[in-house]
Amino acid sequence: MPHQLYIASGACSLGAHVVVRELGLPVQIVKVKTRVPESPIHAVNPLGRVPALRLDDGTVITENSAILPFLADLAPGTPLFAPAGSVERGLIQSWIGYFSAEVHAGGFRAVNRPERYSRDEAAFDGIRSQSRATLKQTVAHIDRHLAGQDWLVGGRFTIADAYLGVFVRWIARFGDAFSDLEALNGFRERYLARESVQAALAFEAQE
Amino acid sequence: MPHQLYIASGACSLGAHVVVRELGLPVQIVKVKTRVPESPIHAVNPLGRVPALRLDDGTVITENSAILPFLADLAPGTPLFAPAGSVERGLIQSWIGYFSAEVHAGGFRAVNRPERYSRDEAAFDGIRSQSRATLKQTVAHIDRHLAGQDWLVGGRFTIADAYLGVFVRWIARFGDAFSDLEALNGFRERYLARESVQAALAFEAQE
Ligand SMILES: N[C@@H](CCC(=O)N[C@@H](CS)C(=O)NCC(=O)O)C(=O)O
Ligand SMILES: N[C@@H](CCC(=O)N[C@@H](CS)C(=O)NCC(=O)O)C(=O)O
Repeated sequence: MPHQLYIASGACSLGAHVVVRELGLPVQIVKVKTRVPESPIHAVNPLGRVPALRLDDGTVITENSAILPFLADLAPGTPLFAPAGSVERGLIQSWIGYFSAEVHAGGFRAVNRPERYSRDEAAFDGIRSQSRATLKQTVAHIDRHLAGQDWLVGGRFTIADAYLGVFVRWIARFGDAFSDLEALNGFRERYLARESVQAALAFEAQE
Repeated sequence: MPHQLYIASGACSLGAHVVVRELGLPVQIVKVKTRVPESPIHAVNPLGRVPALRLDDGTVITENSAILPFLADLAPGTPLFAPAGSVERGLIQSWIGYFSAEVHAGGFRAVNRPERYSRDEAAFDGIRSQSRATLKQTVAHIDRHLAGQDWLVGGRFTIADAYLGVFVRWIARFGDAFSDLEALNGFRERYLARESVQAALAFEAQE
């Protein structure tokens, strides 16, 4: 059995999916549903979450901040990442960590799933709106960094950019509230223009 | 100027601090206060957060999930980490990612800082208690993994364990509510028994 990357349509697994296609890795993409008890994801990841990478020896690696570097290291020397010990690798890993911790878990999670943060349904709207304000500050930090450059680190598309695309697509749902983040708007266009991204999105949209 | 690791007493920077001491790295530990405008951290990290690693060339790396591997890679071949491309490295990075995203940002953040998740002070108690329940589920996943083993990956202390110690100390503050997590209780004892941890805690406690 080859390595298998478990993904879900529209989920944060898009970054890893794009990396597999950018690098032409021999990794099978397995599309699953999440949040349904009959999903095959539960047999792979007890947390029921994507992305999850099942290696050919049966080991399962979870967390974007681990899967993205692991995939890139399957293609040593790729410009999508940088060698162990290099400053560039540290910076790429830093952005990935920021997206996973601050943007996703610390940011979007409460906007999307207020029930994890309160039992009182009357509090949900207040949680959604304040969490969105917190998220906007978190995301504005990325926008400032990107001003005047195409990609996050080293002037080239890396695994950090592959992952940022997830959140740049998600904030588009908020419409005008986030549309003043101009560097991120430009990034979204560059991201969506990539062949790997178009192929990944087409695959995820299939029935 | 040597590399400098910015930390704060009692903060999530303890893991990186412990790694510097475990490996005897030539990295200066700089203790700062956070959340005060006059803190030197703001000149290093615009987000005002620790840990932050300022390299000798002035580059700043933030995020535990980037700093911990970067520090370990200053000592190539160290048993605290594993080579690029190895499955063990993937698993170590996965636990680090889980702690940073799910335990810290997705878990403790709302318990400690409900104002980031709602403007309505009347909602804070509900947020604290439900977030604590969510956090307990998140932490129980680690407890199950640790049952019957001393350390997270490969039967030896790694940078993932250095970082886990942060949260194992934080949950002790909740007293009985988390004391049934027995594997984590055992881990806490092993962690606190390490020389590097004792030296780091003594340093952080100094005035
Ligand atoms: N910290 C994890 C988060 C993974 C995550 O939350 N994945 C979502 C999709 S975006 C999921 O599978 N949710 C289903 C569920 O929580 O049941 C990572 O970065 O990999
Ligand atoms: N995602 C970051 C979180 C860093 C963080 O939240 N650090 C806290 C200390 S535990 C801090 O410096 N807080 C001060 C503040 O937010 O102003 C990481 O893992 O490094």
